[in-house]
Amino acid sequence: MTDMIPITYFPPAAQQRHAAAARAVRGTPYERYLATQMLVPAAAVEAVRSGPMRREQVLLPTVAELDRLFGDDYATAIAGYTVVDDSLLCVQSRVAFPGSTAEMFDWWFHWHPLDPRRYMLWFPYSHIEVRPVDAGRLADERLTHPERLYGNKQHVVELMGAEHFEAVIDFCAPAALGIDERRFQAAGFRASASGRLEMPGAPGVTVGVMLHFVRASGPGLELVSHYFLGSHPSLARFPGADKSADLFRAAGIDAKKLEATAYELSVHDMTEWNNLARLLPSLHAEFGPHAAARAAKLGSG
Amino acid sequence: MTDMIPITYFPPAAQQRHAAAARAVRGTPYERYLATQMLVPAAAVEAVRSGPMRREQVLLPTVAELDRLFGDDYATAIAGYTVVDDSLLCVQSRVAFPGSTAEMFDWWFHWHPLDPRRYMLWFPYSHIEVRPVDAGRLADERLTHPERLYGNKQHVVELMGAEHFEAVIDFCAPAALGIDERRFQAAGFRASASGRLEMPGAPGVTVGVMLHFVRASGPGLELVSHYFLGSHPSLARFPGADKSADLFRAAGIDAKKLEATAYELSVHDMTEWNNLARLLPSLHAEFGPHAAARAAKLGSG
Repeated sequence: MTDMIPITYFPPAAQQRHAAAARAVRGTPYERYLATQMLVPAAAVEAVRSGPMRREQVLLPTVAELDRLFGDDYATAIAGYTVVDDSLLCVQSRVAFPGSTAEMFDWWFHWHPLDPRRYMLWFPYSHIEVRPVDAGRLADERLTHPERLYGNKQHVVELMGAEHFEAVIDFCAPAALGIDERRFQAAGFRASASGRLEMPGAPGVTVGVMLHFVRASGPGLELVSHYFLGSHPSLARFPGADKSADLFRAAGIDAKKLEATAYELSVHDMTEWNNLARLLPSLHAEFGPHAAARAAKLGSG
Repeated sequence: MTDMIPITYFPPAAQQRHAAAARAVRGTPYERYLATQMLVPAAAVEAVRSGPMRREQVLLPTVAELDRLFGDDYATAIAGYTVVDDSLLCVQSRVAFPGSTAEMFDWWFHWHPLDPRRYMLWFPYSHIEVRPVDAGRLADERLTHPERLYGNKQHVVELMGAEHFEAVIDFCAPAALGIDERRFQAAGFRASASGRLEMPGAPGVTVGVMLHFVRASGPGLELVSHYFLGSHPSLARFPGADKSADLFRAAGIDAKKLEATAYELSVHDMTEWNNLARLLPSLHAEFGPHAAARAAKLGSG
C-alpha cells in the first residue's frame, strides 16, 4: 500500500470554496462523498518538493515524443513539473485507481459535467463550475462515448492554488492529438480524457494540451497524465497555437509565474485525481448506469 | 505523542530557498541539522484548515486582554488565525518543546542571530537573513539576557509563503508590552522572546506586536505565541502605531490580503517552531555554553 498523507495547505480562498461546496451538497445524495481530508502519496509530494523535473524526465508534446508513452524506455513520474524554454509548462503524474475500471472512468466524464455539485465532489477546495456546450448530447445514452464527449467543449471554473482559473477543454480522440491508437491499445490503455485547451475569451487558440490515459494495473487502473500549457514549437501543429504566446504575455504570465503555476498544477493534479480515485467506485455504484438500470427494474417489478 | 504530519506545500520560491540554505551549510557543523521534512501536529493543520478563529477565541493586544493569558478562563489555541475589524491580523499557537528548557530558549535568541546559517536551520524553506543592530552586545556573555537582547533591534529577511517578507523586531521585556510580570511568573512562564514590530523603511512606527512565552510542560516546554499585525485601537499605546494604517495602505494590504497573510503566518509559525522544537536540545548540546565550557576544559586539560 502506498503511503498516503494529507495535504496540509488550504489558504482562505480554498477553505471558502470547500464551505460553498458543503452548502451546495447539504441534504443531497452527494453529501456523503464530500471529502475534507485530501490524501495523496507521500512519494508524489516528495517528487515535486525537490524541484523541477530533470530534462531527461520531460516529455514534449511532439508526435514523436508522445509515442514514447507506449514504449519501454520512458515512464511517467509519479509527479513532476517544469517549464521548458521559459514558455511551456510541463506537468506529469501517475495515479493509482484501485477498484476502478475504464468504464467507470468514461462514465465519470459523461456524468459529472451535468451538475456542478458532482464536479465539486472531485476537488471541493477548488472546483466551482463546469459547463458543457451541449449537456443533452453528453447525457444521451444512445450515443457512443466519442459522440457524447468529443467536440463538446467544457468550460471549467476552479481555483488553482488560491487563484481563480478558467479554461475550455476540447476533448478529442487520442488520434487527434497525434497518438497512434494501435500503439495506445498495445500498451494496455483502455480509456482517455484528453484534449486541447483554450482560454474562455479566445476560442480557436490552442493554449495547451492535456492527456489523461488509463490502463489496468494491479487491483484497478493506473492513470497517466501529462499537461502542456503555454507556447512552444512542439504545439505548432494545433489550431491557433501561434497566437498563444500573445495571450500569455497579455495575461502577464512570464517564465517565473509559469513555473509557480506548474508547481500549483502538480499539487492540484495529485489532489484531485487521488481524491477521485478514492471516490469513483462508490460513486459509480450509487449513481452509475447499473444503479439506474437496477432502480428501473425495481420500479417495474 | 502528538500525531505529527509533514507539511506538503513548498512552492518553487521555498524550494530554492532550501537549496540555498543547503549550499550555505554544506561542510559545516550545521549541515546535519538542516531538515528537509517539516513535521507539524495534524491538529494544528486541522485547526487552521477549518477557517478563521471564532470571535471568543480571539485575544486582542490590550493590557486587559493580554492578562487573560495568565488566568484560567482562556487557553491559546494549538493554531488559529483571523483578521479583526478588517485591519488587525491575529495569529496564535501553542507548540510543545520536549527536552527543552527556558535556558535553551533564551540561548537560541543570543546564538542564532550571530550567523545567518543558524537562522536558516530554524526554517530552511523560508529564512534568509537576520541582522542584529549590535551583534557584539548580543554575543557578550558578561551581560544579562535583557542587556543582550532588549532594545537591540533585529532585521529579519524571510519568505512568508512564497513572498519576500522583511521586518524589524524590537525585543523587549514583557512588562514593556503591558504584561504584569508577577502574573507571568505565577502562571509558570520562565522566558520570553517578545517585542514590537516595525517595517524596515519606517523606524519608530509600531506595525505589530509578537509574544513568545515559554513555561515547563510535560517533558519540556510549552511555547505560547500571539502575533498582532496591522492597525487597531488595541495597539494605540505603542509608539507610532497611529501611522501603521498608512503604511499598510501604501503597501496595498487590504482586509483580504491581511487574511491570506494571517493564514500564511499560521502555517509559517507552526512550521518554524515545530522544527526548532525538534532541533533545539541537540543544537544546544553541540553549540551551547556547556559545550563551549567543556571544549575549553578539554583544551586546557
